[in-house]
Amino acid sequence: MIRHPAFTVEPWAVRERHLDLRVLAQTESVFTLSNGHIGLRGNLDEGEPNGEPGTYLNGFYEGRPLPYAEAGYGYPESGQTVVNVTNGKVIRLLVGDEPFDLRYGTLHRHERVLDLRAGTLTRTAHWSSPTGAPVRIRSTRLVSFTHRAVAAILYEVEAVDRPLRVAVQSELIANETQTYAGGDPRAGAPLQAPLVAEENVPSSEGTAIMVHRTRTSGLRVAAGMCHEIDGPDGTLVEAQGTDDVSRVTVATRLTPGQTLRLVKFFSYGWSAQRSRAALHDQVAGALASARLDGWDGLYADQRRFLDDFWQGADVEVEGDPEVQQAVRFGLFHLLQSAARLEERAIPAKGLTGSGYDGHAFWDTEIFVLPVLTYTHPTAVADALSWRRTTIPLARARARQLGLHGAAFPWRTIHGEECSGYWPAGAAAFHINADIAHAVIQYVDASQDMSFERQTGLPLLVETARLWCALGHHDAAGRYRIDGVTGPDEYTAVVDDNAYTNLMAQRNLRAAAEAAARHPEQAKRLQVTAEETRRWCDAAEAMSVPYDERLGVHQQCEGFTEHALWDFAATGAGQYPLLLHFPYFDLYRKQVVKQADLVLAMHLRGDAFTADQKSRNFAYYEALTVRDSSLSACTQAVIAAEVGHLELAYRYLGEAALMDLEDLEKNTVDGVHMASLAGAWIALVAGFGGMRAGHGRLCFAPSLPADITRLAFRLRYRGSLLSVVATREATSYRLLHGPPLALTHHGEQIHLDRTEITRLNPQRPAPEQEIHQPPGREPARRHQPPATAAAE
Amino acid sequence: MIRHPAFTVEPWAVRERHLDLRVLAQTESVFTLSNGHIGLRGNLDEGEPNGEPGTYLNGFYEGRPLPYAEAGYGYPESGQTVVNVTNGKVIRLLVGDEPFDLRYGTLHRHERVLDLRAGTLTRTAHWSSPTGAPVRIRSTRLVSFTHRAVAAILYEVEAVDRPLRVAVQSELIANETQTYAGGDPRAGAPLQAPLVAEENVPSSEGTAIMVHRTRTSGLRVAAGMCHEIDGPDGTLVEAQGTDDVSRVTVATRLTPGQTLRLVKFFSYGWSAQRSRAALHDQVAGALASARLDGWDGLYADQRRFLDDFWQGADVEVEGDPEVQQAVRFGLFHLLQSAARLEERAIPAKGLTGSGYDGHAFWDTEIFVLPVLTYTHPTAVADALSWRRTTIPLARARARQLGLHGAAFPWRTIHGEECSGYWPAGAAAFHINADIAHAVIQYVDASQDMSFERQTGLPLLVETARLWCALGHHDAAGRYRIDGVTGPDEYTAVVDDNAYTNLMAQRNLRAAAEAAARHPEQAKRLQVTAEETRRWCDAAEAMSVPYDERLGVHQQCEGFTEHALWDFAATGAGQYPLLLHFPYFDLYRKQVVKQADLVLAMHLRGDAFTADQKSRNFAYYEALTVRDSSLSACTQAVIAAEVGHLELAYRYLGEAALMDLEDLEKNTVDGVHMASLAGAWIALVAGFGGMRAGHGRLCFAPSLPADITRLAFRLRYRGSLLSVVATREATSYRLLHGPPLALTHHGEQIHLDRTEITRLNPQRPAPEQEIHQPPGREPARRHQPPATAAAE
Repeated sequence: MIRHPAFTVEPWAVRERHLDLRVLAQTESVFTLSNGHIGLRGNLDEGEPNGEPGTYLNGFYEGRPLPYAEAGYGYPESGQTVVNVTNGKVIRLLVGDEPFDLRYGTLHRHERVLDLRAGTLTRTAHWSSPTGAPVRIRSTRLVSFTHRAVAAILYEVEAVDRPLRVAVQSELIANETQTYAGGDPRAGAPLQAPLVAEENVPSSEGTAIMVHRTRTSGLRVAAGMCHEIDGPDGTLVEAQGTDDVSRVTVATRLTPGQTLRLVKFFSYGWSAQRSRAALHDQVAGALASARLDGWDGLYADQRRFLDDFWQGADVEVEGDPEVQQAVRFGLFHLLQSAARLEERAIPAKGLTGSGYDGHAFWDTEIFVLPVLTYTHPTAVADALSWRRTTIPLARARARQLGLHGAAFPWRTIHGEECSGYWPAGAAAFHINADIAHAVIQYVDASQDMSFERQTGLPLLVETARLWCALGHHDAAGRYRIDGVTGPDEYTAVVDDNAYTNLMAQRNLRAAAEAAARHPEQAKRLQVTAEETRRWCDAAEAMSVPYDERLGVHQQCEGFTEHALWDFAATGAGQYPLLLHFPYFDLYRKQVVKQADLVLAMHLRGDAFTADQKSRNFAYYEALTVRDSSLSACTQAVIAAEVGHLELAYRYLGEAALMDLEDLEKNTVDGVHMASLAGAWIALVAGFGGMRAGHGRLCFAPSLPADITRLAFRLRYRGSLLSVVATREATSYRLLHGPPLALTHHGEQIHLDRTEITRLNPQRPAPEQEIHQPPGREPARRHQPPATAAAE
Repeated sequence: MIRHPAFTVEPWAVRERHLDLRVLAQTESVFTLSNGHIGLRGNLDEGEPNGEPGTYLNGFYEGRPLPYAEAGYGYPESGQTVVNVTNGKVIRLLVGDEPFDLRYGTLHRHERVLDLRAGTLTRTAHWSSPTGAPVRIRSTRLVSFTHRAVAAILYEVEAVDRPLRVAVQSELIANETQTYAGGDPRAGAPLQAPLVAEENVPSSEGTAIMVHRTRTSGLRVAAGMCHEIDGPDGTLVEAQGTDDVSRVTVATRLTPGQTLRLVKFFSYGWSAQRSRAALHDQVAGALASARLDGWDGLYADQRRFLDDFWQGADVEVEGDPEVQQAVRFGLFHLLQSAARLEERAIPAKGLTGSGYDGHAFWDTEIFVLPVLTYTHPTAVADALSWRRTTIPLARARARQLGLHGAAFPWRTIHGEECSGYWPAGAAAFHINADIAHAVIQYVDASQDMSFERQTGLPLLVETARLWCALGHHDAAGRYRIDGVTGPDEYTAVVDDNAYTNLMAQRNLRAAAEAAARHPEQAKRLQVTAEETRRWCDAAEAMSVPYDERLGVHQQCEGFTEHALWDFAATGAGQYPLLLHFPYFDLYRKQVVKQADLVLAMHLRGDAFTADQKSRNFAYYEALTVRDSSLSACTQAVIAAEVGHLELAYRYLGEAALMDLEDLEKNTVDGVHMASLAGAWIALVAGFGGMRAGHGRLCFAPSLPADITRLAFRLRYRGSLLSVVATREATSYRLLHGPPLALTHHGEQIHLDRTEITRLNPQRPAPEQEIHQPPGREPARRHQPPATAAAE
């Protein structure tokens, strides 16, 4: 059941064999190239048709007023929206006197391939113009992992069976027209012509540099391009420019079989502070540096970079070629979102679309960073350093809210709170414990004490201070955190959300421990013994609500006493519920948008007994509708832990195929970075049973029927580990680095250079019957042959 | 401590002895004349200076989009804002060649008097123009209680010591310029030029009629004026008009002592359906009818109407002249807001200002109608009939929210929900029980069975259906109503709000009883025996949360377990809290904006023991900051009931003087109709101990030290009752109508033509110590001499 009509299943590529304009926008997200600094949606070279044109620079945004029908104290007044900056991807083509446009003429063949090892998007087209002149076009695009500010396109046009006059127009276009359907609050709000021209200097040698700035946020962006042109004698090159367009035109005559070859290098620079001239020069320098390496150099470096990555990150899945492809596709996009962050955020959609206005959420710390921690850890330090740089804004926000410490924003680009609906925004204080969680995991895995001292400790301390301000000891001495919103957005502004409290508990303890490890730095942060004692007291007394009658934990105080959602009366077309029911009704009933208590059981598994996990999972499964993409992978992890392997397998499929099959019908807005991470999480933490902490990696491999072999590699404390699990047994091998302390299904293993193999225990069938709300069961997939196109 | 510098204390008038432009906007609200259909703010005749120009027609509004930073299902997309319609009050004056403007020249004397028995606003001014020409001006304004569509002004100009050339310009002005300071969410959002001209036909006989319509709501308004002019020979009259201005100019020469006398009649008509021509004629007819009675006739009828009213409604307070004045001022404004409603709403500000956009809230049913029920009952039938006409809209809203029955709007002009923040709007479902409460009280007091059948029953049935859809029986069988907001707006979206549940309980029972009384009508509403049984079951099992540890009721489930608000750290300048703290922090702590559980103890006193009332009152007093004007009177009632008479007396003062002393600094936006009603409630229900229901009036008079005698009159079941209480005893006298069943401090009395006097029992000092949040104690007033102006 491949829903995209033309993606084929291959282990190392996403290949589209023919073009379907109806899903063009979705493919643009899937085919995005990015290095974490620049993001280029997979728009066609010629610019049109497009679903949503997209060229993004991490951190580059425009401000916009946030309106309220009824204002309230502390509501953010200014939002931030990612800007579609100057488009450098555009290469238009005139064949004879007709533009190459797929909506006209005859398309004989069209293929696009995202190569996960080469890091390129290649497109080949065989097209005849309306007057019948055939042409072959091949373009290969890359966003360099090794030149942070550079992208490049190799563009080739070949005359087929007759002489052809062709003109290639390579452009930089600012303020592209945006289309917007509207209506879905999860999509972004598009900006119209957000860029004000400051400079446009085309040169006759095929080089152009444009500088623009935004009206409100006052950010400046420079874009530049240069070209290497290889065409027949007599090829003409000329350059033109207006405020918003730079155009280098290459016109030539091709004989049959002859090819015009153009390499376009383009580069970006942006700054809130640097001058027009400085940015101009920055871009010119990056272009010169790219030309020095040339196309072949960039291309070779790209592959080398990815070879290194896959060497330490690859996951092999035997028995399910779709998931095999999907998990690599997901890891590739994760890497793309994070490789060259350099103290910027990882947005929920990476740089693949304008969904959620380009904002970063807790997705980063809870879903994306945990994968990168074990596969590409330098990116984690980068992402958390960005959070560190925003502490002054988060402290100011906390003060505005009458709190202490730092209150990190629920959604933001630059660091200010941009959430316009506080019950599902500002009240979701768990973001602070989520950041702490990412810090704790990264420090455990990297043992990077310099990071902990400079970045981790301030983050842990300021978030611990927030929990001290947010909670209170009640008359019975329990530590309560009232009036906050947990991960489940169908339940808001509640007391003692179990996830929040358990994550805050770990946050408080970790802050005290880190302060003890770095006493001087802690002193500089004004941490006192009295304060750390308060943190430990609060953690010790933390309230976690439990329903004795039902024998299950309550997602929050009183949750299990609410009316059950009337699932029987809810039609299939009424999901996602948030688009068809008011918040007031969702909030007051037992219905769960996404894993909340179940996520707590994953991240704070130590706080639950095995029996509690089973009972809780069964209870919340019956209430969870998965109207969020941040759910299936967590349900997979706990389903696997409590023994429901086939159910876990179905959740794995849903997480992994979210974007390749457009399961939520909004891949058009960008890929779901957290769900892509979720494929890895479901495989490694789910079927691999991987948990980590306190210097130890724990595994409990257990495979579902359809997966015959699962192999993955992890980086931990300077070592590279290979784990290979079959149904029967698991082998652990240290590829390099110092020995590791592991457990295999609870058995402790000291792993040095010897490969160790252990049998996987037979697990009894689980006791609890599991069911989901009617119609919300995860789909059971049919396995197509490995390379077949779907119906 | 009279804070307005120039209002004097008189029993039957509000007199301003000199003008202070700094409080001009406040006096405009206080001096508003209205009959419930037309409202004229007390703007100066000459139009400028003004605080806020205001001419309102009940129900006449313009639509405006309600914006949201993040949209949600079911959010109202269109708001409604009261329109400042064509201003007919304007009479400008040219003295010599200089305009009469109080900001220039010399004002020798200026006095305005709102006469509570005459129903007029009289103004006298003695002014010299900048060139020194003195003039005496006297105007008397009325909005007729007997001609619903008519207002009139008697305007006189007298030359003092020298001959004068004067020109009087009597105008109709549409689209007046509005000023707006902004920032306070409780103020209204002003509209700029909301009226589109359709017709303006001035005539040379001093008559003009203008027709306009709104752009969005599509309502049409006609305004007309005509004049009777009495001046010296040679007086010139001419008329002019543009789209938005009609002007009748009267120019004359006055000798010293000579007076130009002008009577201006003006009239309004509006409709969503009637044509331009029909509205034109409607206004012309009203003007003709007014001229038929003439100024003297209108003036005499006005006094007769008020004599009738005071005959059945007056309250005498001996020992406190300020409260004496204030309670009559309040009753006068209540009458003004409701006398000629004719199936329109009573807005929170009446027709005295644009505060809250001119919307009606629960204020009407819980504070205003209970007073009118016993003083001017026909208005209550009118106001509830308006609710009845909006049932189709309320049913549609309920369906939109996934509910059954009717969900009446939290705030509206026309009937659609206009609340832009659902936790303090749509979630405040108690509005539905509040409407039912008003129905129950009115039917009990009027025994108007035709009203009950036609209006009361549908309202009770549709609201009972809502409670059945909103609540559920939990595992223990209790009936819970989760996720709603009670009266206290510093606590929102909670489970089992005690007030809501107790009011819903009464609503459900009353619906079942009324259906039994009117079986045919009930059948037409599809009420079945099965349905009424469900209503009774829900009522019977209604959950009312109680904290066993503290021995007090919980305002809502879990309320008493929340952290206490840190009052010690809250500065005097940080009230009202909603302007200085985020909702999230207010909601999750024990801090109460306004009487909530205490209001339940007033309206559902039968559900609490005397001991519970004492303990609950003490507990919630310590948490209640009174950031709402809908609180002091209720606190007065319960303080009196539990024996804290001096505290009750202070709350009485706060409720009664809300607008005369501008206690909340927003009388500029209009008077607080509910607080004005609160003066009566605090006196009659508080010190009189009056409760009513099931055909019986109960009294328990008990006066505070400063009130030596309290006398009031009530209408009940066709009888007019006089109650006169002193510290020692209470006399009950039937002024007309059938005998009444009363209780006096629990003793049953059958009252017929004989006056009955009973001693008031000595009550023991209350046990509970009471304290309020620091700095939020109700003020202790100093008693100024009866007629002195304050410092």
